[in-house]
Formats: sequence, C-alpha cells, structure tokens
Amino acid sequence: MFTQIQAAQNRLSGYANRTPVMSSRTLNQQVGAEIYFKCENFQRVGAYKFRGAFNAMSQLTPTQKSRGVIAYSSGNHAQAVALVGRLLNIDATIVMPANAPKIKRRATAAYGATIVSYDPHEPQGREAIASDLQAEYGYTLIPPFDHPDIIAGQGTAAQELFSEIGHLDALLAPCGGGGLLSGSAICAKAMDPACRVIGIEPKAADDATRSFRTQTLQRVTNPLTIADGVRTPSLGQITFPLVLDYVDDMQTVTEQAIMDAVTFFFYRMKLVVEPSGALGLAALLSRAVSPSGRIGVIISGGNIDAETLAQILDS
Amino acid sequence: MFTQIQAAQNRLSGYANRTPVMSSRTLNQQVGAEIYFKCENFQRVGAYKFRGAFNAMSQLTPTQKSRGVIAYSSGNHAQAVALVGRLLNIDATIVMPANAPKIKRRATAAYGATIVSYDPHEPQGREAIASDLQAEYGYTLIPPFDHPDIIAGQGTAAQELFSEIGHLDALLAPCGGGGLLSGSAICAKAMDPACRVIGIEPKAADDATRSFRTQTLQRVTNPLTIADGVRTPSLGQITFPLVLDYVDDMQTVTEQAIMDAVTFFFYRMKLVVEPSGALGLAALLSRAVSPSGRIGVIISGGNIDAETLAQILDS
Repeated sequence: MFTQIQAAQNRLSGYANRTPVMSSRTLNQQVGAEIYFKCENFQRVGAYKFRGAFNAMSQLTPTQKSRGVIAYSSGNHAQAVALVGRLLNIDATIVMPANAPKIKRRATAAYGATIVSYDPHEPQGREAIASDLQAEYGYTLIPPFDHPDIIAGQGTAAQELFSEIGHLDALLAPCGGGGLLSGSAICAKAMDPACRVIGIEPKAADDATRSFRTQTLQRVTNPLTIADGVRTPSLGQITFPLVLDYVDDMQTVTEQAIMDAVTFFFYRMKLVVEPSGALGLAALLSRAVSPSGRIGVIISGGNIDAETLAQILDS
Repeated sequence: MFTQIQAAQNRLSGYANRTPVMSSRTLNQQVGAEIYFKCENFQRVGAYKFRGAFNAMSQLTPTQKSRGVIAYSSGNHAQAVALVGRLLNIDATIVMPANAPKIKRRATAAYGATIVSYDPHEPQGREAIASDLQAEYGYTLIPPFDHPDIIAGQGTAAQELFSEIGHLDALLAPCGGGGLLSGSAICAKAMDPACRVIGIEPKAADDATRSFRTQTLQRVTNPLTIADGVRTPSLGQITFPLVLDYVDDMQTVTEQAIMDAVTFFFYRMKLVVEPSGALGLAALLSRAVSPSGRIGVIISGGNIDAETLAQILDS
C-alpha cells in the first residue's frame, strides 16, 4: 500500500501544494510536547481532499475522462473533484446536501462543477441520485474515501510530514470516513514504525471509535457535531479493515473542545481552521490524548463560514 | 544602517520566529504577478513589532533593565514590549488608549505588563503620562518606531524575505509611523537595489503619503480607519528622512479595499490578518499598485478581534 502513496506523491507533484508544517511555542509549553501541524488548510481548495481526488482522477482512462465524473460530498471532496475536473478538463457533477456550508457550495460552483442537491434527512438519498445519474450519463463515481486511489492520495500529506520532520512519537488525524486516517497510518507504519497513529472523532459522531473498539462496523445518523467534515455515517468497506490493521488508537473529543481548538488556531496561531480540521488540537488541549515527545497533527482543512467562526469565537 | 539590521538579526536569532513566506496561485493569476507574502502575523505576539522591541530592549544596560521600561502603543508594540520584558526579565509598563482592541489589551496584560490607560481624544495625553512615569520611576522609553534600534529590528523581516526569495521587483509594506517601512527600505536598497519599495497607507490616514509628496511632515488626528495599527499621527523625526531617502513611492487604499484584502486572506489563504497587515494586498487587489514580476508584501500582523473580523466578512 505504501508504494501507492509514493506513486500518488509523484502524480501530485507540481499540482498539489507542499503544505507547510507549523508549530506554536505557547502550545508546546502548555501541553509539554513538541507539536507539528501539517497545514492542509493551505492545500488547494483549502483541504487535503485535493490529494485523493487528483490521484484518482488523473488515473482515469481517456474514455472515462471524456464522459465525466460524479461525486457526493458534504463539501471539501466536492470542491476537490470540481477543481481537479477543471485542471484535467473533466466534467464534474456533484451531489450535495441542501444544508452544506455556503462557502463550500459556492466554491464548488465557482470551479465550474454542476451541483445537484439532495435532502440529507432522506435515507440513501445521495447514493440513489448519484447512481441514477451514473447510469444515465456514464459518469465515473469518485468516492469521498472508500477507494484505494483516494486513500493513497490522502496518505501523501503524512508522507510530506515525515519527510520534513523525521521521527514522530504519535500522529493525530481526524476521522470521518477514514480515508485520511488510513492513508496516514499506512504511511506512518512504513516510514516511522514506532509512531503511534491515533484517529480523532467528535464524541457526537463516534462511530469509528466504536467500530475500532468492537471490531464491528458501527454507524451514526446525521450526528449533531459542528465538525461538518466528519459527519460521515461510517467507515467504508475498504477503510474499516485498514483502520483496524494500521491505526493504534481512536479517541473522541467534545464539541466544546473542538470550538476551543478552532479559537486557539485563530487567536494564537493566526490560522483559519474548520472544526473538523481542529480535531487533533482538540484532543491535545482537552487531554483526550496525553502527549509527550514529538507529535504530528494533521489539520485537514480551513473551509469555515464567517457565521460559524463568529459563533465559535463568541462561545 | 544595513549593518545594524544584520546585527539585529543576530540578536533575534533563537528568539524571534523566522516567519514563513506564503503565496496563492489564485491571487497570482488574478493580478498577473508572483506575490510573496512575508507572514509576520506568525511572528511572536502576532506582529513584526516583536523584532524591534527585542532588538532595542536586549541592548539596554543592566541598570536600565533593572529599572524597567515604558511604552505607549495602540497595541502590537505594547504586546511586543510586554513579551520581551517577560523574556528578558524587565518590568514593562504600557500606556494604552482606552479604545485599544480588546484582544491586544488582554494579551498585553497576559504577558505580565502593567497597563495605564489614557483618553485617545486628549491631545498629547499619552506622551505626558509616559514622561511623568519615566521621571518618577526611571523607566527607559521604548518608542514604537522612532528609534534606530527599533527600525533596525523591523528591517529584519525584509532581510529574511530577500534571503529566502531572492530578487523582488517591488516590496510593499504598510506605513504607520514608518519604522517597518524605513527598515524594510534600508534593507532592500542594500540587498536588492533594483527593488522598488512602496509604502501603503489607508486613504483615511494618508499623512505619510502627503509628507512624502510634499517633502514636509504632515499629520492626521484620530483618523477613521479600520486599520488600527497605522493610526499613528505622523512619521517620526528619524523615520521621515529615512522614508524620503530610501522609499520609492507611497500609495493609499480605501477602507473597502482593506476589508476586501482581509476577506481574501481569510477565505482564500486561510490566514488571519489584521486590517493594517492587509494594506499591501489591498493595494494589489485595488490596483493602487499595478504589479508585474516578483512582488514582496509584508503582512505586518494578525491581531484582530472576532467582532472586527465578523464585521469585515459581512461587509
């Protein structure tokens, strides 16, 4: 699997941003460890999702490319597929929940994708719409996480982090569908086997943590978390076994801890980070994970509305 | 003068952050130039002011250090003097306008400085208070800009930018009292003489631009600009001749352009930038400066209240 991450890195070269690694003296003193943030909020489209989408779409056949692609997504994956579509001249159709953050909707449309809305409270709404459109137009589905090329692409963020920083005692990554987490874990076990990989979820959407502990796939339905990027109902058929095999632990954080982390990023580090992207820092600040030594944290994205941010900073 | 910047760089080593240089593909396409942002919002205390304060205070005599320092400032200089005081074990007293942004007030107090408030509508209020306290306690005044050690310290940001990026066709820096601008210009003329250095001011606080054009020192009183970091009444006795000698041009930007720039930083670059820090980008986006080639822009700071940011993003 790691060779697929290396191949993805070569494909992404010149297209994806090699995002910076940042740290905070204040934070390091506060938690008593050296924290290295891999800043995927500075990735193209403002999230790591560009990596997986580009890795998957750049490998389509000429026929698949000419027919176009379809994706369903709560937001960042949609933007990624839309931008990659524009870069590679592939028509993109995005099936999006009607309540997706405005900023993500607007950006997706701005990249020239066609948006089809669905009611998020309608069970299986998005898959049904997507498969109807696939059948009608011959689109190729670009899944948000449960695909080897997506997982390999997402793993390139951790690869860059280890290449730049060297050994880490632990690596924290947010977990929604498990694409970023499993890609990061595969990378860690190949590049730095002693590094503990820990997935972080909101308590309000703890399906992956329960799946990990029970070794049986668990689900959540429309979880009430501010972290819109990880509202995914469950791990996937591919990511679940990868998480069991490669991830060392899973931990959950409260909504308050997530908001405290977004606030810390804003005021202390001058970084715009969306709630899902702040899960790792939330785990450190709330001591859900007690760090020592050198800790890597993946900031998954920075696409947050002004209203959501104002609400968090006021809280 | 440039040797003083080099000496300042050596003093700052290990204390100041070597801040990253960032860019945006979207922006480069939009303006048709390569823009390199020197991100002093990532400097300690969230602004370049740490550089000058550290350079000045680290050179005090043991007696001066034991008596303590005093500063008057609308904000970032205050935080810088307070933090440097803590780092070097020097008591700091800060004379601050009663209407200074809450975030700056709170941070200054958190670094352990003593805060003395004054009414900003009272003419010469702050200088009088400061000189009374100086006379009474023997404090050394750390001026916000009009001092060779402060200017040399501020010039180190540009030094790092040229060292990292090489030749620039132009360098844009915000202008309040002219410490950052003159330090940057001295550095540019030594390291990259062909680089045009352009100071940027709010139209509503255009005293330095008028001073530059008329070659006579001009003033503004309590200017109505959102850019609180550059509300300084005029250039100083030291910075004014330096600006005349070393700076190539001055340009002004509207309040709307400043707000548009803060918004671009937030949504497109995921950077928290205060209004004064966004002056350079405001000049590019509004075409107050028409860029071509390689353009350096100093982001002076990122200390912005949630309320001010929300107001800007809503506008």
